[in-house]
Amino acid sequence: MALPLLLLLRAGGLRAAERSGAGSSSAMEELATEQEAEESHRQDSVSLLTFILLLTLTILTIWLFKHRRVRFLHETGLAMIYGLIVGVILRYGTPSSSGRDKPLSCSQEDRPFTTLLVNVSGKFFEYTLKGEISPGKIHNVEQNDMLRKVTFDPEVFFNILLPPIIFHAGYSLKKRHFFRNLGSILAYAFLGTAVSCFIIGNLMYGVVKLMKLVGQLSDKFYYTDCLLFGAIISATDPVTVLAIFNELHADVDLYALLFGESVLNDAVAIVLSSSIVAYQPTGENTHAFDAAAFFKSVGVFLGIFSGSFMMGAVTGVVTVNVTKFTKLHCFPLLETALFFLMSWSTFLLAEACGFTGVVAVLFCGITQAHYTYNNLSVESRSRTKQLFEVLHFLAENFIFSYMGLALFTFQKHIFSPVFIIGAFIAIFLGRAAHIYPLSFLLNLGRRHKISWNFQHMMMFSGLRGAMAFALAIRDTATYAHQMMFSTTLLIVFFTVWIVGGGTTPMLSWLNIRVGDRVPSVEEMSESRWLYFRPKVVFASVLEELATKDGPDSERRNRTKQESAWLFRLWYSFDHNYLKPILTHSGPPLTTTLPSWCGLIARCLTSPQVYDNQEQLREEDSDFILNDSDLTVTYGDTTITANGSSGPHTATTSLDGRRTKSSSEEALEHDLGAAEHEVASRGTRLVFPLEDNA
Amino acid sequence: MALPLLLLLRAGGLRAAERSGAGSSSAMEELATEQEAEESHRQDSVSLLTFILLLTLTILTIWLFKHRRVRFLHETGLAMIYGLIVGVILRYGTPSSSGRDKPLSCSQEDRPFTTLLVNVSGKFFEYTLKGEISPGKIHNVEQNDMLRKVTFDPEVFFNILLPPIIFHAGYSLKKRHFFRNLGSILAYAFLGTAVSCFIIGNLMYGVVKLMKLVGQLSDKFYYTDCLLFGAIISATDPVTVLAIFNELHADVDLYALLFGESVLNDAVAIVLSSSIVAYQPTGENTHAFDAAAFFKSVGVFLGIFSGSFMMGAVTGVVTVNVTKFTKLHCFPLLETALFFLMSWSTFLLAEACGFTGVVAVLFCGITQAHYTYNNLSVESRSRTKQLFEVLHFLAENFIFSYMGLALFTFQKHIFSPVFIIGAFIAIFLGRAAHIYPLSFLLNLGRRHKISWNFQHMMMFSGLRGAMAFALAIRDTATYAHQMMFSTTLLIVFFTVWIVGGGTTPMLSWLNIRVGDRVPSVEEMSESRWLYFRPKVVFASVLEELATKDGPDSERRNRTKQESAWLFRLWYSFDHNYLKPILTHSGPPLTTTLPSWCGLIARCLTSPQVYDNQEQLREEDSDFILNDSDLTVTYGDTTITANGSSGPHTATTSLDGRRTKSSSEEALEHDLGAAEHEVASRGTRLVFPLEDNA
Repeated sequence: MALPLLLLLRAGGLRAAERSGAGSSSAMEELATEQEAEESHRQDSVSLLTFILLLTLTILTIWLFKHRRVRFLHETGLAMIYGLIVGVILRYGTPSSSGRDKPLSCSQEDRPFTTLLVNVSGKFFEYTLKGEISPGKIHNVEQNDMLRKVTFDPEVFFNILLPPIIFHAGYSLKKRHFFRNLGSILAYAFLGTAVSCFIIGNLMYGVVKLMKLVGQLSDKFYYTDCLLFGAIISATDPVTVLAIFNELHADVDLYALLFGESVLNDAVAIVLSSSIVAYQPTGENTHAFDAAAFFKSVGVFLGIFSGSFMMGAVTGVVTVNVTKFTKLHCFPLLETALFFLMSWSTFLLAEACGFTGVVAVLFCGITQAHYTYNNLSVESRSRTKQLFEVLHFLAENFIFSYMGLALFTFQKHIFSPVFIIGAFIAIFLGRAAHIYPLSFLLNLGRRHKISWNFQHMMMFSGLRGAMAFALAIRDTATYAHQMMFSTTLLIVFFTVWIVGGGTTPMLSWLNIRVGDRVPSVEEMSESRWLYFRPKVVFASVLEELATKDGPDSERRNRTKQESAWLFRLWYSFDHNYLKPILTHSGPPLTTTLPSWCGLIARCLTSPQVYDNQEQLREEDSDFILNDSDLTVTYGDTTITANGSSGPHTATTSLDGRRTKSSSEEALEHDLGAAEHEVASRGTRLVFPLEDNA
Repeated sequence: MALPLLLLLRAGGLRAAERSGAGSSSAMEELATEQEAEESHRQDSVSLLTFILLLTLTILTIWLFKHRRVRFLHETGLAMIYGLIVGVILRYGTPSSSGRDKPLSCSQEDRPFTTLLVNVSGKFFEYTLKGEISPGKIHNVEQNDMLRKVTFDPEVFFNILLPPIIFHAGYSLKKRHFFRNLGSILAYAFLGTAVSCFIIGNLMYGVVKLMKLVGQLSDKFYYTDCLLFGAIISATDPVTVLAIFNELHADVDLYALLFGESVLNDAVAIVLSSSIVAYQPTGENTHAFDAAAFFKSVGVFLGIFSGSFMMGAVTGVVTVNVTKFTKLHCFPLLETALFFLMSWSTFLLAEACGFTGVVAVLFCGITQAHYTYNNLSVESRSRTKQLFEVLHFLAENFIFSYMGLALFTFQKHIFSPVFIIGAFIAIFLGRAAHIYPLSFLLNLGRRHKISWNFQHMMMFSGLRGAMAFALAIRDTATYAHQMMFSTTLLIVFFTVWIVGGGTTPMLSWLNIRVGDRVPSVEEMSESRWLYFRPKVVFASVLEELATKDGPDSERRNRTKQESAWLFRLWYSFDHNYLKPILTHSGPPLTTTLPSWCGLIARCLTSPQVYDNQEQLREEDSDFILNDSDLTVTYGDTTITANGSSGPHTATTSLDGRRTKSSSEEALEHDLGAAEHEVASRGTRLVFPLEDNA
């Protein structure tokens, strides 16, 4: 079975070539290897440094844009532009090194090994498998060292960069509006993504057939590849649109629909692509339809999805219990570290069990936000939020600048104009084919209809981003996958720049309400904590006090009445059983469970619940009122309100310098009292509505 | 020159062995490789998960210890114990797999290549060089897969885990006491480490000679190896001692001496070990003394150290300027991200230039704490502190649990009793030989003498920790280095457990003042921000108000007068020129610079300085009063003060639930006012002392 093999050996870079004439003394060789390793490490540092400088540049430019209130370009778009520029420089500006050695022959078994031991002059060196190289590329191996260094292992995106992004999305999911629109969001995410995947896949198969006819296709392109492309490109990521929505305070329901859909459809797209990859028809006629394999794929989809969901929820619940039954909240550092570790372990646990870590992390984030968050100390709440916010910010901008870079530094691009044009048309049709019909069906059941301009806006906001990119770069071994990757990259560029830039005009053209929302009390105290804009908060509180029982309370009233049955069912179950079991809030289980469960109820109810029983209804209102998670942005309004906007003192000052006059402190105190009053009033408003639930 | 070679091929794990009888169809092979990669990824996840669960367990136990006020075992000691247990399980509990294939022969050039291309049945696979394997170990390659997976590349410690630890050390360096004892700290760190390295190196050379006589040595062990061991083991890391000092509020000067010494001697030890490695005598008689090579090593030491120092300081200054001249403080997220990226880029920049990243990061941290911190917004200050605190905590505990694991999972241990006993005696003598003589010499010049019990305590606190471990594991290729690594591991275990546990008894035995320090105002507001113990703060404020102009103000007075000339020189330069140039504080340059520099002064002075001119002296007092950086611990005292210790409300509540009665808020307000009064009084106390500076 042993075949004659060709062993090609190549050493890294110029240094190797320099030294090929050197003497063969053992000490010299050792030194040479060391120097080579050092050189390689230095190049690694330089390549990482490139990315860090890119991010730094992006941050400074974002600041300038925010400062000058420029809205047409989002930070991710910017990161891509800078990435592109650096990519061009690396591609055409650095010399191509060619210090390769001649091939040597030897024999090997008929399949690759993960580890290789090579005996060089009596010394043994260990080599690890990096990957396959397509035969056509072997003689192109004298590629630029720097280009090789800036090309990351695709798994980096899945294992390092995506988890914080997805976790943050789950952790900052806007609870009230999310649960209120749960049914619609699930419909868009599951049915919508499946429809979109199927339609895009079939349209692309038509395009591929056409290309074969015209003679534009130089290698195999199967139907499963087309479906995979459909799954990859169905993951929407409207970062830029949502950022603008946030800034302009666009309609919260539209926001919830868009955000919820994009978060969940990422999960659906990942699992969908895994199950398409798992579709392996047996028998000689591979790549034809096979019912058994198809149902296996469906099974894989259901298995992975539910497994990942369970994994995320379970780890979330474990964290909840740890934080509930220990008194860890005295030590915010420990609490934050624990929270971080538990969330990370969700990812690893899911991966270790063969599920999808990213999906598990998403559901873990949602569980953590819904239950654990209530058990954390005030300090840990802000710590965990800020920690994941920074991680999310860095990871997201890193991915987008890498995308810009990859357009020029990636070595295996295949740009096919027909395929690209076909893909743009297909994604447009694919999105239209699920947004409009689904909205129509949903509107039959919804009390609060999804209006036409909302539907148009959702259609328009179908951007592609980090997830599509990560899915596409994951496998670029074959011709079909390389073409799909190049096309995905172009689609991301186009949608982020053009659609992102067109959001503001689109909003006004579609007459979507903007800035009409009075921020809720919780939201304000939250954003004040996070961004310090006491003056804004103060003004809003005054406004809210002035409009007592005004439009805001009416809106809350209406909101409550319009809640879908799914939401109400879930809400009452969650409120009466899950919250008391998992957190320190909610009514004691002894009152909600039937009397024969008395013993279990007493064990599971934390003593704080009894203490807090009078404040119960206030705590409960948290669920109804909590808009706070939405406003985690940059507090742009500070500038508007304060002009030059220096930092303001807070009552709990960190820096130890108390330079402000005491009058400002008195004001802060008034503010606190006022807020408190508003809070209790807000709660009272909710009281009569409780009976409907 | 081509020699006949032996090519050993081995595949990963059980799956490979299972499939060795499978058919050779291309699709099957592809699938097999994919599955293998998946299996490898799964194992990676499991190994990381192991560490995360270890850390989680450590955190929970730490909490229990803190809760029950157990002080004899520090978290790092605990992490090591858990690591040990898991190490034993992995070592003896998991089956050793042996799915290796038979060696195949082929020919190769006479030195190893960084990349290898292998042709397997017409497909090309790329392999990368992992490292050399000592000839004796080749037939041990059928080692446990899991053990291989949990063994990290040693560079992980230097490039990922050490930087946050060292940066945090620099960032939380206690400014006042550090600069006050600057001379002594520098003496201990530079002279002390050099003396310790030299003495330990020579003693160990004696031990090695003895071992050779007795016949205990089975391979080469050069003098340079002994010196390297001296450098490695001279890096002290009194984490456990300092944690206890912090908790018990032991003498601040002793704390500053110990902390400052340990932080700087890490830097010295790294650079020292690099320069010993760089010591390569030329000519045939290698490993003998060579004056040229020696001076080259000294040059390398000075070059690397000053280069790294400059690099850190320069990046720090760049960050300072960016934060000073932009209005980035309106966007704490951007500011924090920028701060993080700039600090990281220091590391990479230094590595890319061939300097030592860890050392650069240390000085960058010090610069950032001293200047940038003043330019940050209140929000970013807490964010950056908390971010680096969490990173530091996780990295440190990770390293210590890895150490525990490595005792059993590391494959190349060589334990030599003679060498180990010799090493323990040598490190004791090495520390004694620099602490006592240096203290004697320093006491000649110091106004505030280092007393005998302080010297004994410093002698006692010479623990070894993360840095010694990271330096030792960096190179374990030769026999000598393996023995050094095993010995270092045992020394770390012994010192962390025994010395760490003996700190509290030692403090009381040496009659070192404990808990006598009334926390300063800044410290209190800081710790309240970080850990919420309003009641403690309130009590302390009342205490401070009661003892108006009491011992505390006297102490400050004395402190000021006793400041060393080095400190005063530095202070006035820093205060008059550096601070105004780099931050928004300090007097305007127009007043401190000579009149002919008027134009430059006006350009460099930020407009805020003029605005703040009235508050100038208050801000200035920051430098004198700022004890705050010291108290970044777990706020253990909360338990003492509150018994059951639930979380307390803050005036700026994050969770949006305002459940506490308004009376508590009124109390908080009183507290704020009281604090403010104390702050202005504290400032007034400093006024008359300014004339001395």
